[in-house]
Amino acid sequence: MKVLIVGAAGMVGRKLVAALLAAGQVGGKAITSLTLADVVEPSPPGGAVPHTLVAADLADPATASRLVADRPDLIFHLAAIVSGEAEADFDKGYAINLDGTRHLFEAIRLAGQARPYCPRLVFTSSIAVFGEPLPAVIGDSHEHTPLTSYGTQKAIGELLLADYSRHGFLDGVGIRLPTIAVRPGKPNKAASGFFSGIIREPLAGLEAVLPVPDSVRHWFASPRAAVGFLLHAAAMDTSLLGHQRNLSMPGLAVTVGEQIAALERVAGPGAVALIRREPDATIAGIVAGWPKAFAADRARALGFVGDASFDEIIAIHIADELGGRIAGR
Amino acid sequence: MKVLIVGAAGMVGRKLVAALLAAGQVGGKAITSLTLADVVEPSPPGGAVPHTLVAADLADPATASRLVADRPDLIFHLAAIVSGEAEADFDKGYAINLDGTRHLFEAIRLAGQARPYCPRLVFTSSIAVFGEPLPAVIGDSHEHTPLTSYGTQKAIGELLLADYSRHGFLDGVGIRLPTIAVRPGKPNKAASGFFSGIIREPLAGLEAVLPVPDSVRHWFASPRAAVGFLLHAAAMDTSLLGHQRNLSMPGLAVTVGEQIAALERVAGPGAVALIRREPDATIAGIVAGWPKAFAADRARALGFVGDASFDEIIAIHIADELGGRIAGR
Repeated sequence: MKVLIVGAAGMVGRKLVAALLAAGQVGGKAITSLTLADVVEPSPPGGAVPHTLVAADLADPATASRLVADRPDLIFHLAAIVSGEAEADFDKGYAINLDGTRHLFEAIRLAGQARPYCPRLVFTSSIAVFGEPLPAVIGDSHEHTPLTSYGTQKAIGELLLADYSRHGFLDGVGIRLPTIAVRPGKPNKAASGFFSGIIREPLAGLEAVLPVPDSVRHWFASPRAAVGFLLHAAAMDTSLLGHQRNLSMPGLAVTVGEQIAALERVAGPGAVALIRREPDATIAGIVAGWPKAFAADRARALGFVGDASFDEIIAIHIADELGGRIAGR
Repeated sequence: MKVLIVGAAGMVGRKLVAALLAAGQVGGKAITSLTLADVVEPSPPGGAVPHTLVAADLADPATASRLVADRPDLIFHLAAIVSGEAEADFDKGYAINLDGTRHLFEAIRLAGQARPYCPRLVFTSSIAVFGEPLPAVIGDSHEHTPLTSYGTQKAIGELLLADYSRHGFLDGVGIRLPTIAVRPGKPNKAASGFFSGIIREPLAGLEAVLPVPDSVRHWFASPRAAVGFLLHAAAMDTSLLGHQRNLSMPGLAVTVGEQIAALERVAGPGAVALIRREPDATIAGIVAGWPKAFAADRARALGFVGDASFDEIIAIHIADELGGRIAGR
């Protein structure tokens, strides 16, 4: 099976590539080639699977045609301009997140006009398709209420995915990823950054700033769980989806206070002491409009498995990013 | 106030133009000019308001720039490739219903970059954004579940309208029209055609075919109510909408049996005898996936008023289309 990953250089993309290479197969079919595309050419993966590395500008329709020219059997579409940038740069966000997605779907449809072609396409949507007013627990049939251009573009991607699947142009699964925690790497400027920062920094012996009250509740999945969702979507029986091709993934609804309690259980009070409370009304205001919890009943019934606890999410970070070691221990 | 109507030559567009000319104002502001655009040049309206008639191909981005060049204060965007045609001609449906809508919104946004501009834009969406599986009564926060490309394109238009409004590029109101009944004119091939046909044809002394059981329930508004929704959306206080710019309009949930009973009350058993039952499994199957009823609480609270009864819907048809006369009476 030929696999194409669009957005292979991002955090989730790199972990997905590693998981695919480790498994060597998807749904029992051996991976025979891997094409890794991103706006900058991805790093070469290890392993014995033949691979192609592509620097790809999705805003150019010719890029998508080139990417599907060898008719991959399985396509992961992870590429996106992130929320903050898509909000600040209206044109760029629409050019990549809407037009880029449509170019990819169109390239697949047009390839199928030459001879039959209907690849599995796994699309990463986001809980950003939802914003206030929201119920405490968002059900599987709640309307899209995006409060960002990014969320709007992801919601449109979901609609296109369903329509292209209904016509038989592709075999799509859209998965709404929870906020990923613990996100590895340096602190960034994203409004959501502190959700990972208050765990990641103390585990590395560094101070972290907490800009919101302990009572704030949000919806999380570990990077490992996110990769698991992608792999399950790649191999699942899509006939079970009907025409509803997009699914809220099973995350964990956890308050900041519960995050901190988990940190203390895993790493002790010294780690917790590194969290500095510095209330920020702007960030608190943004976060207040975000989803807090999802039912995710459909995804669970279809075999998607989230993390068991926030302690487990922290343990995954320590195992996968820190070589099993906590700073100062 | 300068008014632009895109899609002015359609059935609802023509009635809207007549209503605007009769009123001479919108929300207390006098109409100073009227631009009527459609894929074929609309007929000249009567009345004393200066008007411009435009044959406009919305698939061409230059068309939208031209239409907003004189900065209309109020824009009605009614233009669309209808459901059956958008399903059969995938490219054409997306070119007009998605790209055409986006071209119009983009032209408005770009006009606003030169100097401040934020027109009221009334967009006709459709109950086709919903399809099975559906609850018996669809609430105001039910997800989009289109089962046609037309419904997908309307759902995307709603998302774009909300995002462009949130950014302050335009002041949008999206209204999901119920199925219009009684639709004047000749019978057509639309799967929904019989809902009007079983009333319109007997009132004209002609036979009508009924392809579904009497128990089928659906959601209706008269052409007069539809024009009322458009005029209310044009003048309403949009600060009451928040970021939720799209509304299911208050229709009437009526079964085919109840339609026929209303016809008998209004026009007698002779009219009902002209309905010939000819079950058609294909049409029954299509109609079974359609919405049956909506709560429409938000729209009602915001002052949108639907028809009082199906008897009234029939009376409106007789008054507005038949000069008050029923055939053979």
